[in-house]
Amino acid sequence: MLSLVKPARVLKFGGTSVGTTPERLREVARRVADAHQTGHPVVVVVSARGATTDELVADARSMSETPAAREMDQLLATGEIAAAALLAITLTEAGTPAVSLTGAQAGITAYGRHTDGRIADVDGARLREVLGRGTVAVVAGFQGIGATGDVVTLGRGGSDTTAVALAAALGATTCEIYTDVDGVYSADPRIAPDARLLPRIGSGVMSEMAYAGARVLHPRSVELAGRTGVSIHVRSAFTDRPGTTVVCDETGGEMLENSQPMTGIAHDTDVARVVIRPGSLTGRGSELFFAALAEASVALDLVARTGDRDTGYGWDFTIARPHLAALRTVLARFGCDADIHDRVAKVSLVGAGLLSHPGTTGRMLAALAAAGIETYSVSTSQVRASVTLAKAQCVRAVGLLHHEFRLGQPAETVDHLIAA
Amino acid sequence: MLSLVKPARVLKFGGTSVGTTPERLREVARRVADAHQTGHPVVVVVSARGATTDELVADARSMSETPAAREMDQLLATGEIAAAALLAITLTEAGTPAVSLTGAQAGITAYGRHTDGRIADVDGARLREVLGRGTVAVVAGFQGIGATGDVVTLGRGGSDTTAVALAAALGATTCEIYTDVDGVYSADPRIAPDARLLPRIGSGVMSEMAYAGARVLHPRSVELAGRTGVSIHVRSAFTDRPGTTVVCDETGGEMLENSQPMTGIAHDTDVARVVIRPGSLTGRGSELFFAALAEASVALDLVARTGDRDTGYGWDFTIARPHLAALRTVLARFGCDADIHDRVAKVSLVGAGLLSHPGTTGRMLAALAAAGIETYSVSTSQVRASVTLAKAQCVRAVGLLHHEFRLGQPAETVDHLIAA
Repeated sequence: MLSLVKPARVLKFGGTSVGTTPERLREVARRVADAHQTGHPVVVVVSARGATTDELVADARSMSETPAAREMDQLLATGEIAAAALLAITLTEAGTPAVSLTGAQAGITAYGRHTDGRIADVDGARLREVLGRGTVAVVAGFQGIGATGDVVTLGRGGSDTTAVALAAALGATTCEIYTDVDGVYSADPRIAPDARLLPRIGSGVMSEMAYAGARVLHPRSVELAGRTGVSIHVRSAFTDRPGTTVVCDETGGEMLENSQPMTGIAHDTDVARVVIRPGSLTGRGSELFFAALAEASVALDLVARTGDRDTGYGWDFTIARPHLAALRTVLARFGCDADIHDRVAKVSLVGAGLLSHPGTTGRMLAALAAAGIETYSVSTSQVRASVTLAKAQCVRAVGLLHHEFRLGQPAETVDHLIAA
Repeated sequence: MLSLVKPARVLKFGGTSVGTTPERLREVARRVADAHQTGHPVVVVVSARGATTDELVADARSMSETPAAREMDQLLATGEIAAAALLAITLTEAGTPAVSLTGAQAGITAYGRHTDGRIADVDGARLREVLGRGTVAVVAGFQGIGATGDVVTLGRGGSDTTAVALAAALGATTCEIYTDVDGVYSADPRIAPDARLLPRIGSGVMSEMAYAGARVLHPRSVELAGRTGVSIHVRSAFTDRPGTTVVCDETGGEMLENSQPMTGIAHDTDVARVVIRPGSLTGRGSELFFAALAEASVALDLVARTGDRDTGYGWDFTIARPHLAALRTVLARFGCDADIHDRVAKVSLVGAGLLSHPGTTGRMLAALAAAGIETYSVSTSQVRASVTLAKAQCVRAVGLLHHEFRLGQPAETVDHLIAA
C-alpha cells in the first residue's frame, strides 16, 4: 500500500454548494483545485445536487406511501453518485485529475437499518491507490455498503459523517465542510441580528448545539469527529470567510469552553412535544414502549418522567416532527393515549460551563417569564438547558436569551458577566 | 443454491415503457404482476426512465466536451438503478414482492472499454436466492461491474443484452422484450404503409436487420440470443398485440427463412459514407488505420476496397454518424484525406435466402435506377444487400423495394415470386 507523503485534505460540499448549475460545480472545482495545488492528497465528499433527493423521494412516494427502506436506499444513493461523477468530470476538464467513487468503491461499509445506517468501517486501500497517483477522489456521500452487498444510506447528516470518517481513516487532522452558511453562530443570525460567528467551538458543545437544532452540522458527524480526533472546519462554499473550527475536546476544546461557559442559543421548530399521562403505561409498559420507539428509530429529547409509583408513571418528551407518524403507530400498538403538541419550538442555551453556573437555568426561565413567554417543559443536561415553548414565540425567545447572556460579545469580555 | 421449479421468465422494459409518469410504472407493474401470477420466477430488466439518460449526458457535456468514459459510466448507470428501485417500490405497493438489483448486485461482470463494455459473465447466485423466495428481481439494465469494481456500461442496446444474458444464465428459453413498437416489420411502417408485422424471424436475419438499421432490437442482443439458444419475444408495452418471436437459427429459424428468402427492408439515415482515395494509405497504412478505428470503437459497414497494388488501395465504407468525430481524429493522425458524405442513407434488403437468389442484388439496383434513384456504394453479404443513396431519397427507396419484393404479403404467397 502506498503511504501518502503529506496528510490528506478532506473537503465536503453539500447539496446547495454543488448546486444545479454548471457554475456552481465549476466553483466547487476551483476550490478543490486550489487544495490539490497545495500538494496534499485531496478527497472530496459530495451530497446530491440541489433538490435531487427531494425529487427522488417524491417519485417514490408517488408510487407508494410506504416504500421499502431498502429500495429507498438504492434510489437515493444515485443522487450522490451522479453528483460525484459530474464533479470528477468538471475537475478533469479544468486540469485536475479526478475519479468519482461510490461509497462502496471508497471502501465504506455500513450496518444498521436501511435509510438510517451507521458507518462500520472504511477500507482505505482504493482511496490510497487513487490519491497515491496524485488524483483527487470524489466520493459519493451519505452511503456505504452493507454485509449483503446492498446500499445502506446513512440518514440525516450522512455526508458530513462520511467526510469525517474518511478524514479519520486517512489520518487527516481536519475535515473541511463547505456549506451555505458562514460557520457556527452564537444563535441563528436570521433571528438574532447580533449573533456572533464562533471562530472555535469544542466538539462536545457543538454536538449539543447540533442536537438542539443548529443545522449547520449534524451531531453524528461532530461526535465521530470528537471520537476520532478530527477537527471540523465549517465554512461557506460561497465566500472566503474563515468559518468555525470545531476542536476536539481532548485537543484544546476544554480550555476554550472554560473561557466562554455559554456558547450559543440553538432552536428547533421542527419538533413536537408528547405528553403521556401518568398511568397510561403500566407494568413493563414504559420499558417496552421506549424499546419500540428505538426500534422505529424515533429519537427522544427533553425526556421527563411524571407521576409516581402510586399513580403510575407518565412521560413528557420531544421528538422530531418527521417521526410523528412512527410515534403514532407505536402509541396505537400500546393502546396508549398521548397529547401531541406540534406547534412548539425547542430553545436551548448551550455551553460547557452550564453546570458550573447553577443559576443559569433559573436565569433563563426568569428572562422568558419576564417577557411573558410561557415555557412548557424544561430539561437541563451538563452542557445544555432546553425549554419548549409556543412556536410563535421562538424568534423572540432566541433574541431575548442571546441578549440576556451577552452572546454577541467575544468570550474575554463576557466571562465575568456569566460568572456574576 | 436453490433450483427453480418452473423456468424463469425474463421481461425487459425500455425507457419509453417505464416512462416518466406514475401511470407508466403502474402499467409495467401490472404486466410484471401478471407474469408473477403464472408461478414462474420473474426477472425484470429496466432502462432509465424517459429522457433521464439524455439529461445526464447533457449535464456532463455542460461540464466537459470530452468527459472521461469511466465517469460517464458511473453517471449514466444511476438512471437504470433509480428506475429499477422505483419499479420495485411500485410492485411491492401492488402486492407483488420485489427487490431491485444493480448490475453488480445481479452478478453481471463486464469487460472492455467504458461506455461500450461487453458482458463477461453472470453469477446468478443472488438472483436465484431472490427468485427462490418468490420475489421479483428488478435488474438495472445496461451495466455490469468490471474487474476493478468499477461500473462498465454496455453501450447501445445494453439493456436488451442484459435481458438476454440473464435469460441464458437462468436457463430461460425466452426473453420478453417490451418496447414502443408492435414488433419487427418487413419495413418501417411509418415509411412503407403496407409493411407487414413478422410473427417469426430467424436470429441471423434479425441480426442483419438490426445492423442495417432496424431499431427495434440491437444486433448484439440478437447475436447473444442466437449464441445462447434464447428466443426473443419482442412486443408492445402499450398494447396486447402478439409481437414478433426471434427464433434461434438452430431451433427452427433456418426452416422459417427458407420459406421466406426475403424478410424485409431496413434503413438507416444516421450514417455517413467515407471515401478514402487510392494511395492515401501506404505500406501497412490500411492495416494500422483499421486497427486504430477499432481501438476507437468506430464500427464500419459496407466496406469496399478500391484501387490496386500499383495505384495503392483506397477504401469506401459507412460509419454511424455519432462516430464521425472519432473517425476524423484517426484520419488526422494518419495524415489521411477522405471525402465524407453525411447526407446519405443506407437501405438494405435482408433475407436468409439472398445468396441462393443471385439475381436479387441486380433486381434491387435495377428497381432503384428505374425510379431515378442513384446508388453510391453497394455491398452484399450472405443475408443482406445494402446500398447507400441520398438521404432525401430514402423513404421512396424503402417503399419501392418493399413493393418490388412483395414483402407486404405472407411468406407462402411470395416464395415463387422471389424464386422467379
